[in-house]
Amino acid sequence: MAYFENVNKIQYEGQNSDNPFAFKFYNPEEKINGQTMEEFLRFGVAYWHTFTQDLIDPFGVGTAIRPWHQYTGMDLAKARVEAAFEFFEKLGVPYFCFHDVDIAPEGSTLRESNQNLDTIVAMIKDYMKDSNVKLLWNTANNFTHPRFVHGAASSSNADVFAYAAAKVKKQLEIGKELGGENYVFWGGREGYESLLTTDLKLEQDNLGKFFHMAVDYAKEIGFDAQFLIEPKPKEPTTHQYDFDSATAHAFLQSYGLDKDFKLNIEANHATLAGHTFEHELRYARINGMLGSVDANQGDTLLGWDTDEFPTDLYSTTLAMYEIIKNGGLGSGGLNFDAKVRRGSFEADDLFLAHIAGMDSFAVGYKVANKLIEDKVLDKYIDDRYDSFKSGIGLDIVEGKTDFHKLEDHALSLTEIKNKSGRLEQVKATINKYLLTTFAEK
Amino acid sequence: MAYFENVNKIQYEGQNSDNPFAFKFYNPEEKINGQTMEEFLRFGVAYWHTFTQDLIDPFGVGTAIRPWHQYTGMDLAKARVEAAFEFFEKLGVPYFCFHDVDIAPEGSTLRESNQNLDTIVAMIKDYMKDSNVKLLWNTANNFTHPRFVHGAASSSNADVFAYAAAKVKKQLEIGKELGGENYVFWGGREGYESLLTTDLKLEQDNLGKFFHMAVDYAKEIGFDAQFLIEPKPKEPTTHQYDFDSATAHAFLQSYGLDKDFKLNIEANHATLAGHTFEHELRYARINGMLGSVDANQGDTLLGWDTDEFPTDLYSTTLAMYEIIKNGGLGSGGLNFDAKVRRGSFEADDLFLAHIAGMDSFAVGYKVANKLIEDKVLDKYIDDRYDSFKSGIGLDIVEGKTDFHKLEDHALSLTEIKNKSGRLEQVKATINKYLLTTFAEK
Amino acid sequence: MAYFENVNKIQYEGQNSDNPFAFKFYNPEEKINGQTMEEFLRFGVAYWHTFTQDLIDPFGVGTAIRPWHQYTGMDLAKARVEAAFEFFEKLGVPYFCFHDVDIAPEGSTLRESNQNLDTIVAMIKDYMKDSNVKLLWNTANNFTHPRFVHGAASSSNADVFAYAAAKVKKQLEIGKELGGENYVFWGGREGYESLLTTDLKLEQDNLGKFFHMAVDYAKEIGFDAQFLIEPKPKEPTTHQYDFDSATAHAFLQSYGLDKDFKLNIEANHATLAGHTFEHELRYARINGMLGSVDANQGDTLLGWDTDEFPTDLYSTTLAMYEIIKNGGLGSGGLNFDAKVRRGSFEADDLFLAHIAGMDSFAVGYKVANKLIEDKVLDKYIDDRYDSFKSGIGLDIVEGKTDFHKLEDHALSLTEIKNKSGRLEQVKATINKYLLTTFAEK
Amino acid sequence: MAYFENVNKIQYEGQNSDNPFAFKFYNPEEKINGQTMEEFLRFGVAYWHTFTQDLIDPFGVGTAIRPWHQYTGMDLAKARVEAAFEFFEKLGVPYFCFHDVDIAPEGSTLRESNQNLDTIVAMIKDYMKDSNVKLLWNTANNFTHPRFVHGAASSSNADVFAYAAAKVKKQLEIGKELGGENYVFWGGREGYESLLTTDLKLEQDNLGKFFHMAVDYAKEIGFDAQFLIEPKPKEPTTHQYDFDSATAHAFLQSYGLDKDFKLNIEANHATLAGHTFEHELRYARINGMLGSVDANQGDTLLGWDTDEFPTDLYSTTLAMYEIIKNGGLGSGGLNFDAKVRRGSFEADDLFLAHIAGMDSFAVGYKVANKLIEDKVLDKYIDDRYDSFKSGIGLDIVEGKTDFHKLEDHALSLTEIKNKSGRLEQVKATINKYLLTTFAEK
Repeated sequence: MAYFENVNKIQYEGQNSDNPFAFKFYNPEEKINGQTMEEFLRFGVAYWHTFTQDLIDPFGVGTAIRPWHQYTGMDLAKARVEAAFEFFEKLGVPYFCFHDVDIAPEGSTLRESNQNLDTIVAMIKDYMKDSNVKLLWNTANNFTHPRFVHGAASSSNADVFAYAAAKVKKQLEIGKELGGENYVFWGGREGYESLLTTDLKLEQDNLGKFFHMAVDYAKEIGFDAQFLIEPKPKEPTTHQYDFDSATAHAFLQSYGLDKDFKLNIEANHATLAGHTFEHELRYARINGMLGSVDANQGDTLLGWDTDEFPTDLYSTTLAMYEIIKNGGLGSGGLNFDAKVRRGSFEADDLFLAHIAGMDSFAVGYKVANKLIEDKVLDKYIDDRYDSFKSGIGLDIVEGKTDFHKLEDHALSLTEIKNKSGRLEQVKATINKYLLTTFAEK
Repeated sequence: MAYFENVNKIQYEGQNSDNPFAFKFYNPEEKINGQTMEEFLRFGVAYWHTFTQDLIDPFGVGTAIRPWHQYTGMDLAKARVEAAFEFFEKLGVPYFCFHDVDIAPEGSTLRESNQNLDTIVAMIKDYMKDSNVKLLWNTANNFTHPRFVHGAASSSNADVFAYAAAKVKKQLEIGKELGGENYVFWGGREGYESLLTTDLKLEQDNLGKFFHMAVDYAKEIGFDAQFLIEPKPKEPTTHQYDFDSATAHAFLQSYGLDKDFKLNIEANHATLAGHTFEHELRYARINGMLGSVDANQGDTLLGWDTDEFPTDLYSTTLAMYEIIKNGGLGSGGLNFDAKVRRGSFEADDLFLAHIAGMDSFAVGYKVANKLIEDKVLDKYIDDRYDSFKSGIGLDIVEGKTDFHKLEDHALSLTEIKNKSGRLEQVKATINKYLLTTFAEK
Repeated sequence: MAYFENVNKIQYEGQNSDNPFAFKFYNPEEKINGQTMEEFLRFGVAYWHTFTQDLIDPFGVGTAIRPWHQYTGMDLAKARVEAAFEFFEKLGVPYFCFHDVDIAPEGSTLRESNQNLDTIVAMIKDYMKDSNVKLLWNTANNFTHPRFVHGAASSSNADVFAYAAAKVKKQLEIGKELGGENYVFWGGREGYESLLTTDLKLEQDNLGKFFHMAVDYAKEIGFDAQFLIEPKPKEPTTHQYDFDSATAHAFLQSYGLDKDFKLNIEANHATLAGHTFEHELRYARINGMLGSVDANQGDTLLGWDTDEFPTDLYSTTLAMYEIIKNGGLGSGGLNFDAKVRRGSFEADDLFLAHIAGMDSFAVGYKVANKLIEDKVLDKYIDDRYDSFKSGIGLDIVEGKTDFHKLEDHALSLTEIKNKSGRLEQVKATINKYLLTTFAEK
Repeated sequence: MAYFENVNKIQYEGQNSDNPFAFKFYNPEEKINGQTMEEFLRFGVAYWHTFTQDLIDPFGVGTAIRPWHQYTGMDLAKARVEAAFEFFEKLGVPYFCFHDVDIAPEGSTLRESNQNLDTIVAMIKDYMKDSNVKLLWNTANNFTHPRFVHGAASSSNADVFAYAAAKVKKQLEIGKELGGENYVFWGGREGYESLLTTDLKLEQDNLGKFFHMAVDYAKEIGFDAQFLIEPKPKEPTTHQYDFDSATAHAFLQSYGLDKDFKLNIEANHATLAGHTFEHELRYARINGMLGSVDANQGDTLLGWDTDEFPTDLYSTTLAMYEIIKNGGLGSGGLNFDAKVRRGSFEADDLFLAHIAGMDSFAVGYKVANKLIEDKVLDKYIDDRYDSFKSGIGLDIVEGKTDFHKLEDHALSLTEIKNKSGRLEQVKATINKYLLTTFAEK
């Protein structure tokens, strides 16, 4: 273990610590509602951003300085595994996630790619034996290679569809081999550059068939991971088919797949679609579709996926609010689908950024938990909707009205009195909770 | 008939006419594919923008100068009916659309509002007898009045839910009375200002119940109009439940309403949701949900609903492309949900703007029709997807594959060859069609 | 004093108070760096949002319930003055701001409008004598009335230009009469609906002339208030001439007005222009143009001016950071150009919202002050730019280099070593300050 | 000449041609107002998009298939020169543009990079002797290499500033050597990732000094090209200092550089900044700053620089309108800073895309010219602003008024009458011109 020799194991040292390589708010062993933070938050490291990504941007080559940069090919892949497990252990994170091409280089043929994967998967499995780190999810990268230029499962080329299927098949097998708890589909090329020459119906039908075959194959091999769709509205394509939670939900319903899939919600994808992170989580939650979370943040003044480490405490608080209300994420977790800024190019930044993200979610968790314990928002909601607890309101909720009865009721009303929504007060109250949760220690 | 005395009946005079009050491209009697333009395009005038709207904006009071401004109350409502039918006739438009409050003022009670409506509806019915103008759709305005501050069918107040239901009930009766061909639900307040104090599940469930009751009541009274949901992502609320076509589709599926509703697609709502107009039309079309169209355009550099009269010929062409491919709009039509600019405040501008819009859709129709006749885009599509017509591709389409067969196929491939999408050439070709369709005359 | 009888004087009660009508963080008497919060923050109430606005939106009429709603005309104007001073006193806010039409109704002629103004201004002056409340700024509303449909100082109609000038002239006189400390120009109609028929050069030249005449007239009457331009990119127009700070700066430089004007920066206008609030403040600050602030916030997922009360503590902290670094705002202040949400329609909400805003800026002030005291960001900056403190870097800063010397230096370099920007760590540090500033009490 | 052997010289064949490798609207020899299209339009090919770019995107590696892909290093650079001149000649385009790194690979030292440049520049110069192709502009790529991670002329590292200067110095020399008519500065890294740790004042001051030194050096070596700033608001950075035309103008004025620079306006950069292309052109034009154009288009529903080939005829028409009104572009031209879509990966697409772009600007040129000849928009403008041609309006324009006189005038007005802006009619008229300009042949 020599890749990050300047960094020791990250410990919880509390808010007064000046050690930059220490948690200030995340204490894995601290119990809330009977569960430790570690058990509830289920943090994961994204292999691609942390071990594969070199911090390129559309106008610049990579800036990352990484201790594995002297290696190439399979040696590089192996060095990354070593570095990854050193990183997981030092950070104390219980999960990781990967795409096929993150962990092993593609060969000149599919067969060779699979052999490369087998080698690295065996190595990872060995490392997992000596570690508490588990596989949150894996996936097939069906978007980087030029063959996917026109899509993967929605490609205009049947050979590409087949190739994409073969890659997913392999990843399902690997997921089973490594005990993966979920399997994710992000359709980076499942969309269109232009509607002008796109057969939208054929592409959507093919995508539906592809998912059904994936479900069937997982059953066949006894891989019982939760399947997840990760919505994103655009980028790289002009329009992606899993635009947002509701769009993915519509698709899954249309193709009879809504019982087989849940959603993997990403903060930055939410804002790119014009939604808040909490909206997407809420939509998924109330529809029984909240599976897992890609924990990051975007910049709403920019129009692309910045995949920043999450530090906005409003966002982490409201996200954790939904997750607690959901009773946790089940087999899902909080995967840091986040990359250090291009200017944060040192290996140390990988730790600093994860610490920032984990601390931010720990803060969000504690503040959200306190808001729920004190019924802060629930009180407003109880009061706002109390007309639905009796009389005509209860009849509505219980399905005992029709337009005749409702009209009769409306005609009988002399005045309709609404209540102030008090939104400014609500926001001030949340601020008070944010500022004082850590003051009471 | 004296409201628009300076304007005579609008005639088709062709592209070389210098008469600003003449159609240059829209010829109602011109036949395309066996139908006249008038039959296929089914234009409608929006009562609210043309007869009620005074051209306010968030920082300015109304600028409109209208020949009915000397009237108030029911006299004003009656004057508007007279003006409207004069306008419809002079413009030669076959349909109109309205909200309850557009045609008659609200009274101090629901009962009085309904009486006002009855008076005006009777008057409209009389006018319709002497005219060829028909009702494309009507709807209840459940968003302007303060009672709807927290929503209508998704209000936090059960009394408001009932009131909204009573208003829809009345409009269903009026729709039947006037022979309305569709009935529209636009949920301007069915959304949230903030998720913080919103019981999203309750609101959505109530909305679902409301729609079921509306369907039931229409059946009860034998009103067989097509029900339409009009998606809009936001404005006035922060988030509206019918965000876009896919979201409305998800909702309708979730609540078992997808057989009872189609969608009314508006161009400006599409772009506010981050979609092109043609995307929303296409999505609706391939899902069998394309019902009707609100014909307008937005400004994609602005973040609000500008509701401009449609003049972008790319947009009208691609919209008509979808509509032709849909086999027309059935009972739907092209309703000009468009208002003249605040600076176009004279009554004449109402004619000039509708002429601009009708001409633009006529151009779009002819160009789209020629693109389809010449199989311009279809040729590209046939070529792009031809791998799905035989071999593994056909097996995929016919559901005869699984991940084993697909992997075998993928392993057998020595090279995957994609075809260039030729998008620049496609766009140049569309330009050529746009520029030359009218040159060939 | 009977308008807000349920509300007593708002007091500082600290973060543990459960009284919703109490400050939890804003303590007007608390001294920071030798000044009280009240002296440094210089809060102002916006007359229009608090006393005139009825909470309309583009799809809804006003919902506000106000204790002066029984009055009309000049009686209403007088009631508002009474209510306003009761409000200022109970809230304990030192400043207010108004447009002409906020305080007095327009008459049927300019002369009558001015008479109405004179009556109310005399009344306000009387109230001010018995109060500590001062006029932060006033302005002429040259945007609401239909006459301004095509602009005011940039109107295509010379009569409108003259009318706008007359209105500004009157407001300059009133500003002097009431001891106004600043005078603001917000050009809500100084822009274009479409470039197609706009003579941009003429409009800009006229605008420049208008400002020069305003400067001259203020000098003539001895009104020495700071003149302020308030940038906004759009809404109501498609493009406004004072798009953002830099655009206003370019304009002022081009027309030789940059010594006579500073900028009034509004948070929501910043984000509509694609900038952060702190960016606009920084730009103004380093160019010596930071004059005053319109304290509110927008919703970056919405494309219009929501004018929310400021509660985002990141925004208030970074804003106060710039203001402290600027040495305060001079004659400027923090004017709450913010309106309660349409659902917060009760008079109580006016207090609750201002409390939320004042508390949020108090928090921002204290956190920013601590960041500055501890040189948190300054340390990073010192380190990042230290190559400019000696050698070639110092030569660059001192203007002692040219391309020859720089090339020589570049050719001599064997390696260029950059430092990590550590942005994730910086953000985590700011979070730590936010969470712990109030914990240390 | 064997790189594009399937393509012969592109000829004007007119709108009825079915040859995809033919101009349909661009006829280089056609004279308009005494100049040929070739002379007026001054098209240029962007070396980077056409010869260097491999069509990567943030989620995909390059898809381009290019006939020079078998080469590497300096051989590749030489092959590209050969291919480029073959391309220029076959396309019949009079200009090209490049960054240093487009034409020659960077060496391991600055000296070696310069030697590589010298070799290729000599080769280019030879090719230019046998060709009519000229250098529209060159520039230094001070953004791709990791050394520029924190900026170039605004870097936090003085060594990087020096390095950037050395690169610009070399390019100024090369510009002179090759007879470049302009020199462009695009500050892809001159901006910030975050304001938190940015010394904005120092960075802007350094940038100002850098530009002055560049101006001085060009004078020293007798390189009299027009210097151009190319505004872009963001991407790759969060905020770029040359945000838009007005911002660049403010900067140039502040640093006394506005006589030495003009602007290079790019369509896609305009829309990313929230402006139309024509707005940016107009702003530059009326301020005497319109230097050159990067001809492309973006997708306003996407938030990044798509750099599409221009095919939107509204955009090309309104752009050409500004350019004609500017009396042409002087030493500037229309550089296709545009890349083929990632799906248009064949070498043929390079021709097809340029043909699409050139045809689109030819159409725009002809339509705009006709609009100007027929005084279509000028008539509206003359009418709209005619109150400024006499009376008080003329006094305003001539600077003969003050607030006293204007108030007197305003008080004397009994009614202010505005004219309708007729925007819908204007847009319909433009459509008519678009549709019929090519019909009249």
